[in-house]
Amino acid sequence: MTAPFTTLNDFRGLLAAAPRADQVAVDGAAARNGQLTKPPGALGRLEDLALWLAGWQGTDRPRIVAPQIVIFAGNHGICAQGVSAFPAEVTAQMVGNFQGGGAAINQLAKACGARLDVVPLDLDTPTQDFTQGPAMTEAEVVAALAAGWDAVDPATDLLVVGEMGIGNTTSAAAIAHALYGGSPAAWTGRGTGVDDAGLARKTDVVARGLGANPAAGTDALQALRCLGGREVAAMAGAIARARVDGIPVILDGFICCAAAATLAAAVPGALDHAVAGHQSAEAAHATLLDRLGKPPLLQLGLRLGEGSGAALAISIVKAAAACHSDMATFAEAAVSAG
Amino acid sequence: MTAPFTTLNDFRGLLAAAPRADQVAVDGAAARNGQLTKPPGALGRLEDLALWLAGWQGTDRPRIVAPQIVIFAGNHGICAQGVSAFPAEVTAQMVGNFQGGGAAINQLAKACGARLDVVPLDLDTPTQDFTQGPAMTEAEVVAALAAGWDAVDPATDLLVVGEMGIGNTTSAAAIAHALYGGSPAAWTGRGTGVDDAGLARKTDVVARGLGANPAAGTDALQALRCLGGREVAAMAGAIARARVDGIPVILDGFICCAAAATLAAAVPGALDHAVAGHQSAEAAHATLLDRLGKPPLLQLGLRLGEGSGAALAISIVKAAAACHSDMATFAEAAVSAG
Repeated sequence: MTAPFTTLNDFRGLLAAAPRADQVAVDGAAARNGQLTKPPGALGRLEDLALWLAGWQGTDRPRIVAPQIVIFAGNHGICAQGVSAFPAEVTAQMVGNFQGGGAAINQLAKACGARLDVVPLDLDTPTQDFTQGPAMTEAEVVAALAAGWDAVDPATDLLVVGEMGIGNTTSAAAIAHALYGGSPAAWTGRGTGVDDAGLARKTDVVARGLGANPAAGTDALQALRCLGGREVAAMAGAIARARVDGIPVILDGFICCAAAATLAAAVPGALDHAVAGHQSAEAAHATLLDRLGKPPLLQLGLRLGEGSGAALAISIVKAAAACHSDMATFAEAAVSAG
Repeated sequence: MTAPFTTLNDFRGLLAAAPRADQVAVDGAAARNGQLTKPPGALGRLEDLALWLAGWQGTDRPRIVAPQIVIFAGNHGICAQGVSAFPAEVTAQMVGNFQGGGAAINQLAKACGARLDVVPLDLDTPTQDFTQGPAMTEAEVVAALAAGWDAVDPATDLLVVGEMGIGNTTSAAAIAHALYGGSPAAWTGRGTGVDDAGLARKTDVVARGLGANPAAGTDALQALRCLGGREVAAMAGAIARARVDGIPVILDGFICCAAAATLAAAVPGALDHAVAGHQSAEAAHATLLDRLGKPPLLQLGLRLGEGSGAALAISIVKAAAACHSDMATFAEAAVSAG
């Protein structure tokens, strides 16, 4: 299929018109949950996850049988300013590593039984340096959103989007700063591991990015266009497609959440179909999750990207569905309900 | 096999003589970890888990292919005092549910590919009410330890032990109080969900337990005998067997950790092969994990027992091994190392 939008306004309209979760299915799942052979509430967050899945799958017995992970890759003009511990050519090298099966996300996808797709986006053409003006034209950001939209398998029942893009924690920090304000330093972290001088350069780039792009401060999708990268916009496009199609999403780390945050700021309820998989060690991710109102399922100190934290959470969400949908009720198992 | 001990002193001696982790394998794994295609430290706790597994599996490329979950069940004399929201017959009913495949742990075991064994221990003969004297004779506690020891599959490469036993949060609280002191109330929680009056009865039972069993305050294995249950002792026996055989263990919730704590208090280093899988919603579990020096991998608010929290963590530990052992190195993938 080809994405059904050609402008940012079309895209916003599609997202705003997306249907809500199925409350009848949620109510049915809640009733079933109360009859399962366990004390009330004893499965903790697994119970919340099961009800959330029920609403988006439209059934009181949700299942996860075809999870999909999509990794988008892009290159960033701001890399020329020395914002990363790694050179920009690593983006393409890591795409090769994903395609060859050697990266962390390959092992994580295999471990949880997820399909893994890798979508490199014009790696030979980095976005513009956003300290000099918009990173992307409207045509470029729409093309990236469409690439994300089209990458989602409509048959998947749980989506994770991840990224690879040297320099993209700087892009994500600039987006968060544009959306939420605060000091540039509060949103800027060490990414793959820059030293103190690199961190100072990143912080300065984040501050100058908003200065050079006043539109980014007034409209969330303009923030995505002016300060994002192609892979950041593609993640937003994939998450939006999932919202429109009613596919539940597990959000990954700082960059994924910055992409998602542009949707939430543009259209209230745009992330109702999403949970946070993992709180990254990237310092500002905790703040961003808090702004999104999404408590993470995991806190294991990862700061890798690639969808890795969310991929780890796929097993948790699958387990929640399995417990909810396959456990016996008190009546079925002839257990006294207390 | 039959467990190679017939007294608590034999058991203590076996545990004290258990070999340590293989430091050569840990060093080899650390060297490999530094060459994998990711920024240093970017896999967070997964990296620590991989090195820990390497030490216990004696290889720089550890793998989890045969995880085992064993659920022990026992009944408790203190149930007569009204310490639980559920009647004692639920223990046997839930054993039936485990055997029929209808409990949460059945779904969790299937989801992570673990073998599940269920070991009911003399359910028709509850332990003695420990407010009246020791819960078990030495012969009884040794038999329970041996049942746990014998239940471990020597071919497993990752062990989880869980429990079912109406009344056993009271037993675990009494053990923790005997080992670590503090107020009985600080160790006593709502278990499967007792009301305020039930909580007051539980707290009183915990306080009277140590009063009626002064030996429990002076020796950790006596605390297990005097205040434990058969399933609690069996968990300790299985964890000890794993330590002796070098099998890594994921600890479960409050009751599992109380069982494990008796080993740690009896023999320093007895839990070096164990990580904490999940911090339970049972209030005192966080304190107990802190005493054991084991930060939990997960905090998902479960309070079910059955090994459920640790079973969820099996997927995390498997993922850690898969990333460590199957990722490409920078040289293999031709990726610039920054």
